[in-house]
Amino acid sequence: MSETLDARTVREWGRRYSNWGRFGSDDERGTLNFITPERLLAALALPRHGRIHSCSLPFERNGPARGKRFNPIHTMLVDGGDTLSGAERYPGGFGYADDAVFMPLQCCTQWDSLAHVFYDGKMYNDRDVALVSSAGAAANSIDKLRDGVVGRGVLLDLARHRGVRWLEDGEAVAPEELDACAERQGVTVEPGDIVLLRTGKTMRHLEAGSWDGYVGPTPGLSLRAARWIYEREVAAVASDTFCVEVHPAETADCVMPLHMVSLRNTGLLLGEMFHLDALAEACAEDGEYAFLFAAPPLPITGAVGSPINPLAIR
Amino acid sequence: MSETLDARTVREWGRRYSNWGRFGSDDERGTLNFITPERLLAALALPRHGRIHSCSLPFERNGPARGKRFNPIHTMLVDGGDTLSGAERYPGGFGYADDAVFMPLQCCTQWDSLAHVFYDGKMYNDRDVALVSSAGAAANSIDKLRDGVVGRGVLLDLARHRGVRWLEDGEAVAPEELDACAERQGVTVEPGDIVLLRTGKTMRHLEAGSWDGYVGPTPGLSLRAARWIYEREVAAVASDTFCVEVHPAETADCVMPLHMVSLRNTGLLLGEMFHLDALAEACAEDGEYAFLFAAPPLPITGAVGSPINPLAIR
Amino acid sequence: MSETLDARTVREWGRRYSNWGRFGSDDERGTLNFITPERLLAALALPRHGRIHSCSLPFERNGPARGKRFNPIHTMLVDGGDTLSGAERYPGGFGYADDAVFMPLQCCTQWDSLAHVFYDGKMYNDRDVALVSSAGAAANSIDKLRDGVVGRGVLLDLARHRGVRWLEDGEAVAPEELDACAERQGVTVEPGDIVLLRTGKTMRHLEAGSWDGYVGPTPGLSLRAARWIYEREVAAVASDTFCVEVHPAETADCVMPLHMVSLRNTGLLLGEMFHLDALAEACAEDGEYAFLFAAPPLPITGAVGSPINPLAIR
Amino acid sequence: MSETLDARTVREWGRRYSNWGRFGSDDERGTLNFITPERLLAALALPRHGRIHSCSLPFERNGPARGKRFNPIHTMLVDGGDTLSGAERYPGGFGYADDAVFMPLQCCTQWDSLAHVFYDGKMYNDRDVALVSSAGAAANSIDKLRDGVVGRGVLLDLARHRGVRWLEDGEAVAPEELDACAERQGVTVEPGDIVLLRTGKTMRHLEAGSWDGYVGPTPGLSLRAARWIYEREVAAVASDTFCVEVHPAETADCVMPLHMVSLRNTGLLLGEMFHLDALAEACAEDGEYAFLFAAPPLPITGAVGSPINPLAIR
Repeated sequence: MSETLDARTVREWGRRYSNWGRFGSDDERGTLNFITPERLLAALALPRHGRIHSCSLPFERNGPARGKRFNPIHTMLVDGGDTLSGAERYPGGFGYADDAVFMPLQCCTQWDSLAHVFYDGKMYNDRDVALVSSAGAAANSIDKLRDGVVGRGVLLDLARHRGVRWLEDGEAVAPEELDACAERQGVTVEPGDIVLLRTGKTMRHLEAGSWDGYVGPTPGLSLRAARWIYEREVAAVASDTFCVEVHPAETADCVMPLHMVSLRNTGLLLGEMFHLDALAEACAEDGEYAFLFAAPPLPITGAVGSPINPLAIR
Repeated sequence: MSETLDARTVREWGRRYSNWGRFGSDDERGTLNFITPERLLAALALPRHGRIHSCSLPFERNGPARGKRFNPIHTMLVDGGDTLSGAERYPGGFGYADDAVFMPLQCCTQWDSLAHVFYDGKMYNDRDVALVSSAGAAANSIDKLRDGVVGRGVLLDLARHRGVRWLEDGEAVAPEELDACAERQGVTVEPGDIVLLRTGKTMRHLEAGSWDGYVGPTPGLSLRAARWIYEREVAAVASDTFCVEVHPAETADCVMPLHMVSLRNTGLLLGEMFHLDALAEACAEDGEYAFLFAAPPLPITGAVGSPINPLAIR
Repeated sequence: MSETLDARTVREWGRRYSNWGRFGSDDERGTLNFITPERLLAALALPRHGRIHSCSLPFERNGPARGKRFNPIHTMLVDGGDTLSGAERYPGGFGYADDAVFMPLQCCTQWDSLAHVFYDGKMYNDRDVALVSSAGAAANSIDKLRDGVVGRGVLLDLARHRGVRWLEDGEAVAPEELDACAERQGVTVEPGDIVLLRTGKTMRHLEAGSWDGYVGPTPGLSLRAARWIYEREVAAVASDTFCVEVHPAETADCVMPLHMVSLRNTGLLLGEMFHLDALAEACAEDGEYAFLFAAPPLPITGAVGSPINPLAIR
Repeated sequence: MSETLDARTVREWGRRYSNWGRFGSDDERGTLNFITPERLLAALALPRHGRIHSCSLPFERNGPARGKRFNPIHTMLVDGGDTLSGAERYPGGFGYADDAVFMPLQCCTQWDSLAHVFYDGKMYNDRDVALVSSAGAAANSIDKLRDGVVGRGVLLDLARHRGVRWLEDGEAVAPEELDACAERQGVTVEPGDIVLLRTGKTMRHLEAGSWDGYVGPTPGLSLRAARWIYEREVAAVASDTFCVEVHPAETADCVMPLHMVSLRNTGLLLGEMFHLDALAEACAEDGEYAFLFAAPPLPITGAVGSPINPLAIR
């Protein structure tokens, strides 16, 4: 715990916790490969209530995105006013509405594709950074995950585990705490699991009625969780923060170190800006923290991420 | 079969096959209400293979949208070139990529919300057309379906049933044919089902390597299927065409009559531009045409539709 | 001065200061008609220095737009990184860059078209409001002004006239003050003139380094200027504020009363968010407040406004 | 004339016809520097009619852009339907309309900035290609031309000169023909001039009612015009085609050779997709081919081009 974490650590752990080649030299699905048919079938057997909980924030202008990532701009192409005024409608009093959206694929609840981060000229599975150009990602793009993401979801409610409403900004969650939380909840994290981490950060901003500060210092995973992620062979990790990992990072000379180690090397699917409060309530009620989880990405050709509406089915 | 179908039929059948008020005066979920927890749990028990089939087309510039509905415009906000050139990257040789998309919500594989069509000043559940304004849909919008859509999917492979590669443009599929197809396939359509209709139209265009003519005359459901949909209490109907129903319509004076009757009155969820070929192959192989189906919409506030990546899990 | 201004005033003055029909029942150019060939030729003779001053703010993400009007989103379609990486370039080491912008037409320096405001079902020249639909403005759109806007510009530097750096938010500028300012500056406002009003509001925000509060309470023209505008037969009025007129308005029951009277009835071209500081400096130096002015709108078919780069040539 | 033109010619002529450093090592305005105050004042004295001719095509969905460059997508943010329905309007029956556009900056009538093309790692004035990143052009961007473009315009009506309605696709216009055309028209091309070349290509497509083939093989300037451009010290060259120069190029191994030599090295401002027919008619009528020309670019920060509405004032 006392060791100094820096960019060298990132590169060293990147080598150590690498899955490059493990699923084939042409693999573009990374840790999703851990969701075997057997594990998927087992996940399907989990729900007992027949209830679905969306883990998505609303996609809207007044959303959490900041800076380069603007919030969704939703605009109507045809609407009810056109029917009323007669400007655009079908003959005979029939009408319709169409709309469009302009949004960064990382502006709200989302998956990062394996083309999202890189270093030393490479992204996941030894592919060249130059493949991610203005034309999109020629490899590791989100559309390669079109036949997913469905599997066993496990919620680790860190805020509840700590007995707080939310973790403070800048607090790092160590792998030992993940285990302790799981144990307290009576659940085991298994290979192929989609792990959802609830820090309370999203709830804090929803309660405050403002997203200011949501993208910025945040609680999240310690870089030391990279080993835990690798060894547990989880399929995905998602959280109710904008970047899953703690920010500012434990590494003074590397901005998103866990992304670098786990996404680039382990091939980990990362989910961000999840809304986990309703799910957490339901889990706390019956003490069941494992469920069926489904969050198919939009197969936008060459995209490095996708907005999603993740569903937990209990 | 010899009766003349016209706009009066639409209004008459609209009254007959109406679910307004059935699920409460404030309901905005329509036929999705037919997916009860019990039915959902039953659907979860269907898969035996642990295999997932995406039913989505690629979202890309070279896609099927035409006219007012343009194809997705995907653009990078930061990319690998910025890391290589040093224009935009993290310190220490680390880099990332971000992107954005501008797309009509009806440009590719999608759900129509219950705010998508209207007549005589009203949309589903007696709500005023004026609620669908430039600001979006103040009622019946797609985000009201955020805790869905998951249930039992049933594929009706009409092309295979007819022994053709694809139905011809303009051919109407009568409800009797739906029953015959289901019977031939050894499957029964039950309340709460999500019915997927395969006409072969999408395959035809994929094989031709051109989407020209995809939006235009098309095979699809006869207006007479409105009663079948209502009585079967299906939760959703989707197809591999741009509008599910036959086009040009059987009603000379009403452009999208089945939309008008079923979406507006029955509260039916309609799915369009589905890609059903891989799923159809798999179903034909083992003769199992029922499966778990999951297609969560993006909860874009006030939207009248959503791009989706529908998954069939077998 | 003591009379109460309200929505009735707006309607009454709208009738009084109307140019409907004056330029023909099919006219869509309004007060631009006051710029006759003779007046244009006279304006061309004004410059003595051969110097050009742009009156445009930068169009950028960090701009003044707020709320529904977002700031321009500029995105690259191809860039230098693609040439460097080889992802997208011409053969032989040659390369190029392309880009795109998504912006409200009212987000920055702009002309309002004569389809921008309306009341009682009508816009300029007795045209129905229903003509402004989701498909754009079928009449009075900005592209009807494509052969303009060039004429004699006159700067009225109200801040300098008052001896202040900027007028305070909420201060109304009366027509008498326009005349006093012009007289002090030694210039006469003549028919066909494009009048530029400098309140100092833009400078205030540029100095503060923040646009917060720019769209909100602001100094600007009194509603009583409507008569002055009508009688002077000016071709256009523009200012360094977001709405030219004082805000909040002098009419408790009408939000943009001068827009309503002058744009809708007089057919006045309104220019907003102009950057007049460099021009004001130049005018103050030599005491010449009249100049050639050119600000062609982009002829976007059916648009209700256009971003512009207005040029003052001295 | 018999010499073979290839990429080596491009590099050699690029060196020969270079203005790098000529206007200062920090210059970003290139040949616009040739428009001196004296020349501008002289241009202002040219008009005799007081008539304005827009040289812009309509900006609309049904426009000439193809491929990566899509046509403008114009969408309403608020419209007359919202006023009619009451969904969005001011109190008291007052209403307004707002709109937005998404468009490539090169989709229609436009200026190319000096950051638009490059080779061997450099763009105009020895600046690095890496400066043109996903964040835009950090140098040579179009906003650096905000105090322009106004000067003496000269139309060379090549189609009329040849006695044809339009030049055929692939026909190259040699510098000798520019001189012959000017002489026939009784006009002399002088330093600082903005030269407008009319090939008839735009008219041909407007008459055909289709833009198909507009972006593709086209008549235009021979690469040999690079010397003429350099020696004449013109400020800008624009044409009624998508790329000004002949296409396919005379150089088998270089796609846009005149762009490479003249834009990158000479620092030439290039204008594309101009609509010159009305202007040509007016010039032919009175035999005056020189006029005042004004086409201010939108100062979009970091942009590599700008849509424009160029005005010829006679």
